Amino acid sequence: MNVPVDVPVEQPSLTWDGGGVLAVDQRALPGETRVLRLETVDDVVEAIRSLAIRGAPAIGLAGALGVALSAYRHRLDGVVDEAAVRADAARLSSARPTAVNLAWAVKRAIGRLAAGPDAVLAEATAMLDEDAAVNGAAVARACELVLSRVPRRPMRLLTHCNTGRLATAAVGTALGVIIELGRRGLVHEVLVDETRPLLQGARLTAWELGQASVPYRVCVDSAAPAAMAQGLVDCVLVGADRIAANGDVANKIGTYGLAIAAARHGIPFVVVAPESTWDRALADGSGIVIEERDPAEVTAFAGVVTTPADAGAYNPAFDVTPADLITAIVSEDQVFLPAAVQAVQVAQGSPPQAATDRGARSGVTA
Amino acid sequence: MNVPVDVPVEQPSLTWDGGGVLAVDQRALPGETRVLRLETVDDVVEAIRSLAIRGAPAIGLAGALGVALSAYRHRLDGVVDEAAVRADAARLSSARPTAVNLAWAVKRAIGRLAAGPDAVLAEATAMLDEDAAVNGAAVARACELVLSRVPRRPMRLLTHCNTGRLATAAVGTALGVIIELGRRGLVHEVLVDETRPLLQGARLTAWELGQASVPYRVCVDSAAPAAMAQGLVDCVLVGADRIAANGDVANKIGTYGLAIAAARHGIPFVVVAPESTWDRALADGSGIVIEERDPAEVTAFAGVVTTPADAGAYNPAFDVTPADLITAIVSEDQVFLPAAVQAVQVAQGSPPQAATDRGARSGVTA
Repeated sequence: MNVPVDVPVEQPSLTWDGGGVLAVDQRALPGETRVLRLETVDDVVEAIRSLAIRGAPAIGLAGALGVALSAYRHRLDGVVDEAAVRADAARLSSARPTAVNLAWAVKRAIGRLAAGPDAVLAEATAMLDEDAAVNGAAVARACELVLSRVPRRPMRLLTHCNTGRLATAAVGTALGVIIELGRRGLVHEVLVDETRPLLQGARLTAWELGQASVPYRVCVDSAAPAAMAQGLVDCVLVGADRIAANGDVANKIGTYGLAIAAARHGIPFVVVAPESTWDRALADGSGIVIEERDPAEVTAFAGVVTTPADAGAYNPAFDVTPADLITAIVSEDQVFLPAAVQAVQVAQGSPPQAATDRGARSGVTA
Repeated sequence: MNVPVDVPVEQPSLTWDGGGVLAVDQRALPGETRVLRLETVDDVVEAIRSLAIRGAPAIGLAGALGVALSAYRHRLDGVVDEAAVRADAARLSSARPTAVNLAWAVKRAIGRLAAGPDAVLAEATAMLDEDAAVNGAAVARACELVLSRVPRRPMRLLTHCNTGRLATAAVGTALGVIIELGRRGLVHEVLVDETRPLLQGARLTAWELGQASVPYRVCVDSAAPAAMAQGLVDCVLVGADRIAANGDVANKIGTYGLAIAAARHGIPFVVVAPESTWDRALADGSGIVIEERDPAEVTAFAGVVTTPADAGAYNPAFDVTPADLITAIVSEDQVFLPAAVQAVQVAQGSPPQAATDRGARSGVTA
C-alpha cells in the first residue's frame, strides 16, 4: 500500500529512498503537499494509474524505479527471478498506454537486469539525473526559440496541463521554459488552461507558477481562443506524451484545439519534450493509442456529481495534434520544425510526409 | 427575496402567476428541481445576475415580466409612477450586458407603459406566447437545413451550453432542433460539451436530453476537436446571445474554438436564435460588450476550490465567432448564410463585409 510520509514541499517529484520510491502525490495538490512511499510494483502501478504520479517523463522514471523495486523483491540468496521481474516490468509498461516514455524507461531498466538489482537501480537513478540534464538542455533551446519567434516584451504565454517539475524529475519541459523566461523578467502573464477533467493546470501548473513568482491567471480551457483573439497570447507552450516520426504529437486532451486556434491567429505553437517522447516506429499520429479514462472523471468533480445520474461520458485523456499545426518541437537535442519540413517537401514536388530518419530531422534543426 | 415554491418538473422555465414570476432555478438542476417565485424587480435582477434564469431568450422574457411587476408595484390610486418604472426597466436591461434580447424585451414591455400595468403584462405574456411560435418556426427551419447539410443517418451532433426549454419559454433553439431530430429517430448520439465554468451542458442540456430520451454523452469542452477528428460529429448546433449585422455571433465562451475546429474539419456549424438576437446597430462583433464574470467561477468547481488560494482567473462569459466560420444562422424568419454573402461579395470584387440591410440578408435566405 502507498504510505504517506511527511516531507517538505521542496521534495522533488520522485526520488529513491533505500528500498522505496518517494513520490509527491499530485492528486492532493494544491490543497495538500503529501508524499507517498511506494514499496512494491503494485504501489507504483497504482500510483501511475490513479495519476498520483503523472507527466510523461515522471511516469517513465517511476516505471524504471519500479523495475528496481521488483529486482530487489525477487532476489533470493543472491539469485534474481528474472521471469518474475519481467512480468512486473510488463505490468509497469502497460500501466498507461499513451506516453511512450514509460515503455522506453522500463525497457532501459530491464536491460540491466542480468547485472543484478544494484545495476537496475543504478540505471534508474542515472535516468533521474539525466532527466535534469535533458530538461535543462531542452529549456535552454526552447527559450532561445521563443525569444526569436515572439517580438513582444514582456510576453504573454499560454500553457495547458502540467509540464513542470511535478511532471519530470527536474525543472520540467514547457513549464520549465515559461518559468525560466519568467525568471528573466520577460513574462507579463501566463494564461493557465485549467485542463479538465483533472485540472492539472488549475491545481499543479498554477501552484508551480505561484512558487516561482511568475504572474498568471487560470482560465477555462475553452477560453483560450477568445484570449488569442484579444491579444492575450504571444506563444503557446505545451508538452507531449508521444511524438510520431512525422511530428504528430499526442498530448493532453485539448492540445489539438489549442493548436488549431493558434494557427488561425498566427501564434507560435511550441512543443517541448525529451527525445524519449519520440516514437520513431510510428510514421504518424494515426497509430497512437489514446487512453479513454473513467467517465466519472467528467461526470463528477471532487465527489460532486455534475450531470444527471445516468449520464455517460466521452473521456479521451489525450488527442493528436497534426504536425502541420506545430511551429516547433524542442528536445534536448534538436528543434524540429514540421512546417519547414513540409515546405521543403512541397517545394521539391513531393507531398508532405513523415521525416523518418534522423538526418531529415537534423536538416531542419535550428 | 426569491421564494422557492413546490411545483412539478414539467413547469415551463418562466410563467406569470398573478403578481409574481415563477422561474425554474437553473442553478439547482439537475440535482434538484426548484421553482422560484419572484415578486419584485430586485428578485428578477438577482435571478438574472446569479443565473437562476439564464439563456438569452429567457432572460429577455424575465426582463419583460419584471417591467410588469414594477408597473403594478408603482401604481397608486390608479396612477403609475412612470419614472420609477423606467428606472426599474433600466436596472433590468443592464442586469447582464451581452445578450441583446434583454434590452429588446424590456424596451418592448415599457413601450406599453402609458396604457397601464395590465397592458405591460399583456405585452410580456404575449412575448412568452410568441417565444413558443418563434422557437417552433426556427426549429422547423433549422431541422430542414441540417437534414440538407448532413448526409449521415442517424447523425452525430455536438452542442455547447444550454439552448433548450430552460433557456427559452418553449422548446428551445439549437437544443430544440436536436431534440426534434431525436424524436424523428435521426440522432445516433449527441456530444454535450460540459460548458465550463458553470456546466450548463453537463447540468442542463444533459438533463433535457435525458428527459427527451435522446442518446447523449457529456465531454469536457476541450475534447470536441478530438471528437471531430474521430468522426463523432456531423454537425455543431449552438445558440447566440447577440448577432452583429454581418453575422458575427457572441455566444457562451468556447463557441469560437468549436467553430474554428469545425471549419478545419468541414463540419457544418449552425447557429439557431430568434430574430431578437440580431443587433443590427452593430456592423460587426468587435462592438459587442463581453461580460467578465467572477474569477471564483473558474477557481472553484462545484463548490470545491481547485487552484492555489491566491490564484486569479480570466473569465469572459462569452466569445465572438466571426461570421466566416459560421455555416448558417437560423431564426424564425430566415436562414442567413454568412459564407455565401462573403462569396458573393468576393465574386463581385468587394471585400467581405457586413450585410446591413434586410434585403441583403433575404438575398441569401434558404
